[in-house]
Order: sequence, then structure tokens, then C-alpha cells
Amino acid sequence: MTANAQTSLEQDDMLIRISEIEVYPQYLEEYLQYALNVGETSVREEQGVIAIFPMVTQRDSTQIRIVEIYRDQEAYKSHIASTHFQTYKQGTLHMVKSLDLVDMNAMNPKAMPAIFRKMQL
Amino acid sequence: MTANAQTSLEQDDMLIRISEIEVYPQYLEEYLQYALNVGETSVREEQGVIAIFPMVTQRDSTQIRIVEIYRDQEAYKSHIASTHFQTYKQGTLHMVKSLDLVDMNAMNPKAMPAIFRKMQL
Repeated sequence: MTANAQTSLEQDDMLIRISEIEVYPQYLEEYLQYALNVGETSVREEQGVIAIFPMVTQRDSTQIRIVEIYRDQEAYKSHIASTHFQTYKQGTLHMVKSLDLVDMNAMNPKAMPAIFRKMQL
Repeated sequence: MTANAQTSLEQDDMLIRISEIEVYPQYLEEYLQYALNVGETSVREEQGVIAIFPMVTQRDSTQIRIVEIYRDQEAYKSHIASTHFQTYKQGTLHMVKSLDLVDMNAMNPKAMPAIFRKMQL
């Protein structure tokens, strides 16, 4: 936990993850709606959720990849305890064939603001 | 190719990819330096390279994941023809055990500026 949340992007306690999710094909459209909703709500309403970027692989639309960036472990714990996350989690349990939460280290955390600068253009 | 590059983030011709790379352990440090350099140079010098975000999985430091976002196919072609990319590519060929370029569709491309807004805080 940090005293100054505004400098979080230059700190080492960020939680960075790629969630790899395979969805049963019959639930795909419904799952995508859940995933979009929870991602957008979390980024909008939770200060400690820095980014949630959900994607689908072009080679197999049942293979979901979500890049997730949280300010710190505290922010992540708060996220998974939120009503919107629990609604997503419980609502999609039967749609998910496999789930792998792959935790990452950024090669250069200090460069992240520069790396994502053009996303705002 | 787009007439107005400034609106690229809301267009459908973006190229979004997660490159999955396994590096031979004896070359790991050297590879990371190459990867950092080429990513930062590309984002800084190439207008059509929107973001290159290199990560290492915590479970296995020889497993690299790079999230790459290009404005369009034209920008990607220009990127792989650049001197800095070719220096990286030729310099690291012998370090790479496996390479999988996993092309992605964003679930909601229009939301990307909002998704990455806090990266600038």
C-alpha cells in the first residue's frame, strides 16, 4: 500500500496480470457482455484499478485474454470483493472452461506512462 | 490505412497482438535489454506504433509476453522494416527458443482511451 496513489505507476507493488480464459462456445456472447461490463465498471469506479483490457484471440474466439493492472495488492483485494466483480464471477462460473491467472513483471515499470501515452490521442 | 491518424484508436484496422516468446535462459539478460530498447525506440520514433508493453511472467522468467498495438497494417509493415526492429530481430534470433504472435481483437476498441486513461496519472 502506498501513501501517495498518484505516483503508483512508478512503484514496484503494482499487480500486472494476463488472465487467460477459455469459454464454452455456447456461452460466448453472454460471457463477453459480462466481461465488458465488469471491466468498464471497475476502471470507472475503482481508483486502484488502473486498466482492464479485454481481448479475444483471432484464431479462436473462445480464447479470452484480459490485461489487468492494479495499483497494489490492496486495490486488487478491494476489486475482487466488489459487488460488480462478484456479480461477474458468480454469473460466469458455468461459462468458463479454464482459467489461468498469469502474473507478470513489467520489464520497465517506470516506462509505463510513456508506453501508453498515445492511447489518449 | 486511415485518412486521419488522430482518430486511430476508434478504428477497426488497429493491429493488436500478444507476442509470446520463450528465451534460452543463458541469453535472458541480453534479450531483455534488446526487447526494452526496441520497444521504447519504436513507441518514441514511430507515430503508428501506439504501444509496446513488454512483460516477463513471474512463474518463469524465460517466458516473455509483449502487448503490441499498431495503428494499422501499414504502421506494422513500416515498424518491421525499421532499422531498430531489424537490429533487434537479427540480434536476438539465436536467443529465441519459441515465438508465437497471437493476434487479438479488442472486445471494445472504442473504450480503449478510457481503459488506459489512468496510465497517465
